[in-house]
Amino acid sequence: METTLQTVSEHACFGGTVGFYKHTSQACGGEMRFSVYVPPQARAGTQVPVLYYLSGLSCSEETFQIKAGAQRLAAELGLMLVVPDTSPRHTGIPQEDADWEVGTAAGFYVDATQAPWAPRFRMYSYVTQELPELVGKHFPARMDREGIFGHSMGGHGALICALRQPDRYRSVSAFAPISAPVRCPWGQKAFGKYLGPDPEAWRAWDATELLRGGARIPPLLVDQGTRDKFLTEQLKPELLRQACEQAGQPLTLRTQDGYDHGYYFVSTFMADHLRHHAAALTA
Amino acid sequence: METTLQTVSEHACFGGTVGFYKHTSQACGGEMRFSVYVPPQARAGTQVPVLYYLSGLSCSEETFQIKAGAQRLAAELGLMLVVPDTSPRHTGIPQEDADWEVGTAAGFYVDATQAPWAPRFRMYSYVTQELPELVGKHFPARMDREGIFGHSMGGHGALICALRQPDRYRSVSAFAPISAPVRCPWGQKAFGKYLGPDPEAWRAWDATELLRGGARIPPLLVDQGTRDKFLTEQLKPELLRQACEQAGQPLTLRTQDGYDHGYYFVSTFMADHLRHHAAALTA
Repeated sequence: METTLQTVSEHACFGGTVGFYKHTSQACGGEMRFSVYVPPQARAGTQVPVLYYLSGLSCSEETFQIKAGAQRLAAELGLMLVVPDTSPRHTGIPQEDADWEVGTAAGFYVDATQAPWAPRFRMYSYVTQELPELVGKHFPARMDREGIFGHSMGGHGALICALRQPDRYRSVSAFAPISAPVRCPWGQKAFGKYLGPDPEAWRAWDATELLRGGARIPPLLVDQGTRDKFLTEQLKPELLRQACEQAGQPLTLRTQDGYDHGYYFVSTFMADHLRHHAAALTA
Repeated sequence: METTLQTVSEHACFGGTVGFYKHTSQACGGEMRFSVYVPPQARAGTQVPVLYYLSGLSCSEETFQIKAGAQRLAAELGLMLVVPDTSPRHTGIPQEDADWEVGTAAGFYVDATQAPWAPRFRMYSYVTQELPELVGKHFPARMDREGIFGHSMGGHGALICALRQPDRYRSVSAFAPISAPVRCPWGQKAFGKYLGPDPEAWRAWDATELLRGGARIPPLLVDQGTRDKFLTEQLKPELLRQACEQAGQPLTLRTQDGYDHGYYFVSTFMADHLRHHAAALTA
């Protein structure tokens, strides 16, 4: 089936283009939005590596492009940046907008199995299958060079996408990721809705459980601020460190003194993450 | 009288701090907000030069800190960035929020003389007197090294602040500034309200008229995108170029092909502007 992509807006930026697009998603059963930064290298017809960024709770496909300050270095390194929205919106599911921790902008990058979420909240399939197909078709993307990173809920999303498809993504990193949704209130609440009450069904969507189960990914870079208000209750980086140590998974977990959970933190360390990805993707 | 400054929030960013503050303003007769980026150099007790940024219509003291991507290089160059809100808010003036071109977030950096605006909309006095006094008192600012720049309405604001105080600001620049409010719809509408119906009273607040009247400022850097939707009706850079040529005012006016009016444009050329200011402020 032909996919139709509608351009919402495009903006020149650091010699390339920030664009916003919408389309009818098969995976999510309705309209989805995403943004793409196409670096200047691609304007000469060169296919460039693709780096996916998965955003956190309450964000959209716009947040990263506005706040992360990533385009400058992506333009220099020749990386395409692809940013999906954090969930379907306006699905008609009752209470979809009632709680910022579940529903709209809280898709958690899983494929829901439970009513009423199952037909629409299939962000894992969207991010790993449908979106890459669209990008490969409509943008000058080198689809054999994919990396993935994200922030908070999206940091964990990047981890599970990579851990579930270990030979696919050549580079992985995260800013202040949720480490173990099965063991934090955000994850327990959302997974209980999307995947049902049995925690056994959650394990296939938890990074620490996937590591425990034998999944491995390229050397992982993680930054975490010490003044992050979600640090001890929700993010629990010690669980990720422990799981990586036990699994022999290479991890560079950097503790950043005084930084909080927001984009002033993310933007500060963005360059290090982009260089981490470029080293693997443009080698 | 003692000024009391209330911290709204502070965030570590590129080794320094982005902070948001509010206080009771004498110039504007009520609460005003501003933001400051304090670079890492100042944490060691060093006083650093101050660069004021004046934002455009509909923006606030947050816009620049979120969207402009300026902190990275300001941290490297050792510049403090001070960003006032674009007007008083919640003044109780009838219809203050009814029109994005006049009233809230449309202060135009003038001192209003007409009812009901005169007691509150005194952004020129705020930006050039009260705010610098606050900054000098509460932040490690080197107050003999001030520069000023801005975007759109704020680009023109930077021009008139500097032109009216020619020996004060050591460096001036603008992104897509309004060139001549007396000759564009935005300016005519706002000045008609704030300064009254007689255009003669507007001339003291128009950059091209101030140049014509003999005011001179340090060599001026201006960037202007070719796909800016406000270019021909509102901004009219040819009027600024003409006024500078006739006045012998040094101007570097750069036309940026394909760029629009937004912060994807501003952020792209931010580094050039910061270096322009640093050359004068840190010499």
